[in-house]
Amino acid sequence: MAKDNKPRRPRAQTPKGFRDYFGAEVDERKAMLDTIADVYHRYGFDPLETSAVETLDALGKYLPDVDRPHAGVFAWQEDDEGGKGDWLALRYDLTAPLARVAAQFRNDLPSPYRRYAMGPVWRNEKPGPGRFRQFYQCDADTVGAATVAADAEICAMLADTLEAVGIPRGDYIIRVNNRKVLNGVMEVAGIFDPVDPSKFEHERGIVLRAIDKLDRLGPDGVRALLGEGRRDESGDFTEGARLGNEQAEVVMSFVNAGSVVAERQNEIAQFDSKNPVNRDKDTAVQINSDLLRPDGGFSNFVASLYAPHPNQTRPDNHFQNIASVQVLGEIVRKSTMGNEGVDELVSILDLVQAQGYGPDRIVIDPSVVRGLGYYTGPVFEAELTFEITDDKGRPRQFGSVAGGGRYDDLVKRFTGQAVPATGVSIGVDRLLAALHAKGQAGATARGPVVVTVMDRDRMADYQTMVAELRQAGIRAEVYLGNPKNFGNQLKYADKRGAPVAIIQGGDEKARGVVQIKDLVLGARIAESASLEEWKSQPAQFEVARKDMVAEVRRIIDGERP
Amino acid sequence: MAKDNKPRRPRAQTPKGFRDYFGAEVDERKAMLDTIADVYHRYGFDPLETSAVETLDALGKYLPDVDRPHAGVFAWQEDDEGGKGDWLALRYDLTAPLARVAAQFRNDLPSPYRRYAMGPVWRNEKPGPGRFRQFYQCDADTVGAATVAADAEICAMLADTLEAVGIPRGDYIIRVNNRKVLNGVMEVAGIFDPVDPSKFEHERGIVLRAIDKLDRLGPDGVRALLGEGRRDESGDFTEGARLGNEQAEVVMSFVNAGSVVAERQNEIAQFDSKNPVNRDKDTAVQINSDLLRPDGGFSNFVASLYAPHPNQTRPDNHFQNIASVQVLGEIVRKSTMGNEGVDELVSILDLVQAQGYGPDRIVIDPSVVRGLGYYTGPVFEAELTFEITDDKGRPRQFGSVAGGGRYDDLVKRFTGQAVPATGVSIGVDRLLAALHAKGQAGATARGPVVVTVMDRDRMADYQTMVAELRQAGIRAEVYLGNPKNFGNQLKYADKRGAPVAIIQGGDEKARGVVQIKDLVLGARIAESASLEEWKSQPAQFEVARKDMVAEVRRIIDGERP
Repeated sequence: MAKDNKPRRPRAQTPKGFRDYFGAEVDERKAMLDTIADVYHRYGFDPLETSAVETLDALGKYLPDVDRPHAGVFAWQEDDEGGKGDWLALRYDLTAPLARVAAQFRNDLPSPYRRYAMGPVWRNEKPGPGRFRQFYQCDADTVGAATVAADAEICAMLADTLEAVGIPRGDYIIRVNNRKVLNGVMEVAGIFDPVDPSKFEHERGIVLRAIDKLDRLGPDGVRALLGEGRRDESGDFTEGARLGNEQAEVVMSFVNAGSVVAERQNEIAQFDSKNPVNRDKDTAVQINSDLLRPDGGFSNFVASLYAPHPNQTRPDNHFQNIASVQVLGEIVRKSTMGNEGVDELVSILDLVQAQGYGPDRIVIDPSVVRGLGYYTGPVFEAELTFEITDDKGRPRQFGSVAGGGRYDDLVKRFTGQAVPATGVSIGVDRLLAALHAKGQAGATARGPVVVTVMDRDRMADYQTMVAELRQAGIRAEVYLGNPKNFGNQLKYADKRGAPVAIIQGGDEKARGVVQIKDLVLGARIAESASLEEWKSQPAQFEVARKDMVAEVRRIIDGERP
Repeated sequence: MAKDNKPRRPRAQTPKGFRDYFGAEVDERKAMLDTIADVYHRYGFDPLETSAVETLDALGKYLPDVDRPHAGVFAWQEDDEGGKGDWLALRYDLTAPLARVAAQFRNDLPSPYRRYAMGPVWRNEKPGPGRFRQFYQCDADTVGAATVAADAEICAMLADTLEAVGIPRGDYIIRVNNRKVLNGVMEVAGIFDPVDPSKFEHERGIVLRAIDKLDRLGPDGVRALLGEGRRDESGDFTEGARLGNEQAEVVMSFVNAGSVVAERQNEIAQFDSKNPVNRDKDTAVQINSDLLRPDGGFSNFVASLYAPHPNQTRPDNHFQNIASVQVLGEIVRKSTMGNEGVDELVSILDLVQAQGYGPDRIVIDPSVVRGLGYYTGPVFEAELTFEITDDKGRPRQFGSVAGGGRYDDLVKRFTGQAVPATGVSIGVDRLLAALHAKGQAGATARGPVVVTVMDRDRMADYQTMVAELRQAGIRAEVYLGNPKNFGNQLKYADKRGAPVAIIQGGDEKARGVVQIKDLVLGARIAESASLEEWKSQPAQFEVARKDMVAEVRRIIDGERP
């Protein structure tokens, strides 16, 4: 334990990487959590609240922070059992605890088990500016559903949720990929063996983390990590996966799939534009066989793309979906698991499009990988597409605010029995930041009516006024600081955002009246109003004590004459 | 870190002393937190949310668990700075973090700063049955208000809050005492020196914890801890404060004040009954001078006791308040701080009674001590007075659900400048348990409408039905488990508490209809109804597909003919 060298004073500071949330910040987050919970609930999910603390064992090691102490979690050992106590840790997400619950209560829970959860999670990351080690997540997961209909539903629900919290359609896109496709790539590259998936785990971990950093490192950086390794600008060396050249090229074909898709997308769009304007199912079949699946097979989603589409011009995303399925299919053609992955993506598009979630909202994107190690199937990410201005004044897209995917092996860790599961996690703090960046949040909350103290011996009188206001449902308080300086009391009311201050000195008391000071109007008058306005509607006026509550109510409701 | 001996499976268990909360349990707690926040907000308190993690230093050592590792908190050292990392810890309450915030942001916050906070706190206690190491608190505090009006307000608000969450008047009592009185007792006993409060801290700590255990140990147990110490039934020895006989007797006079108060209370009640029925202020003055303050001084609260009191018989608590003030005053007569403490208690009663909170709700009780080490002035506790049945079937009072007090030195730890502060903490989980014990909570939440899957190739159809129901604001989901066994689907709907199941096989699809199964009615019929009823109102019926939403709505609203 820290040595206590009295009289040294403790520092009044949050630990590095932690922060406090005040007033309206807390209200805003709560409102958002309530809205999200409402959508999740309507989708049939039930709430679950687990503890912040789990055994380190139960959490497992799935964070990308392999080099951090305890692989990125905050952990400590129970020290009351002679050094043999359990290692405990703060949860780093809400999924690992759910897997533990699903295993622990497997005989009692309904199956499938749909649950939502919200609360803080903790990451033992290097603190940095704007990067916090405690943040809120709001998750929904379905445990026990093997069908991709469960994944499709989560994607649709994610779209509904974003719109419910105030992100308009067009300002977000849900990007979907499939870990099975990635495993197919690994299989083709010779670092995944479907017969013994435990082989090459180390190499695959490095490859996965490398691909996930594409945005930051660029293709060359990723390529270096596939080979011997990479030295960054600071001189730190990151070990590579030591793949052979041919192996690495297979992986790079996946890494570069995004740009190949973009090219192919143009080809399809051109093909499309050269064909009859009245596109119909036959055209779809033709596109399907010409471009998508030269070896046959038919997808409803392609058909639905070419069904009449009256109200909307067809966005490029339609073609992106076709091109993605095609390009990914080509890369993993030699892998059974890879093909299965592509088929699942097509099924997901079929399902969401049947419910009206078109490619303007949900799109296949080969670049989606997700950093967490436990995903086994479809993975998805919600990205906000509007531009914001970054710290350095440059415009950039806001980026990812939610993500998730299928993790069929997490429950199996505990029970040995396979339990399919899929879910999504919304980064609530990032989503709030996005609404702030759009100017859609950040309204200041209204302060209380402040009853000032003119005579400290009459505190009981002032408390009685406040009690009456509160009983009428009006937020109110008596000034509880040192009442000597009356100016301080008005400054306090101002700082609190009080709409009204009540004043009653001995004289007013004797006459059975109170002074009501309309602080909102007062501020407006001080800013701009002419003398005439001030006269017709004074910011301070006297009313009978018995009319106080009604008059305050009138001001707060904006009903003053 | 724990050694990972593959292929050993992790245990699917919460760590000892932690638990999970499911479905309605989570909803119930949220509803209670919302209600409490609403009252706090109306009283002018603003929300604050600090992190779960603080530096161990900032938290200080105030828990009664002096013998536990890290004095009862969960703590660990930041291990990425060569063994010199900060010690971090999970907060054990919401007060210590508030003191840190008040110091850290002292130049930005309004003063007084009124804040409320809610969330889990963690105690590194020995886990035991029904005793959890993570639990919810919901606090409101005023920082920067030296006046006891702030303490009085907190007591009044606590009463309002308990009533708002469903504890009727008469089922709770708020008991108030003052640490200054206790310090006065310590001064008279010679273990508190007002000139140097740091002297005898160790002894006072032992005395405080001993008094706090009066309920469990009885007067003899407490007496033993004032002297050499005490060996419990298991043979464990707890060190005593080693007071001299006379010193110990002074403390015991305080410990026994409760029974002395009870006697005196009877005397006053008898005096009262012998005096004219039409009690008036003169009688109050007489009581005041005869019984309360032989040395003069007058209290409004005594006067208010004897003002006409038309609607209510005067409860014994009236006399308890007078007797308590009198008895405590006698014990601490020789201590300035002790007298100040008694005066403050009288002022608090004056203030709350002026607002209508009589001794049926707020009462002085010498037995209230509060275990936490940081209190410096008034302390209070909300006790539920109705009887419940304990684990062994015996009736007992439910006991304490909230507590708090004044802690004028917590902020000073950081800044060196005195900042007065007072507040209350509601034990939300205990309060919920109380409502359960009274049968006022525990309603099961309504499950979703379940759309069953007759034909797994038509998943998109079923998802569309669900989407329509949700768009109408109806909680709904499609069955996502293996659809092969239809009976399992209905069992699932049952387990979820679904009000309705929707069924559409190929035949219904062809005819443009769906089957609607009213599960609530079905359960009622299965239980009790006669064949006639069943015929007139079948639990399963067919409707046109387009009328599905309207029919489901009708069943849910209970409007079926």
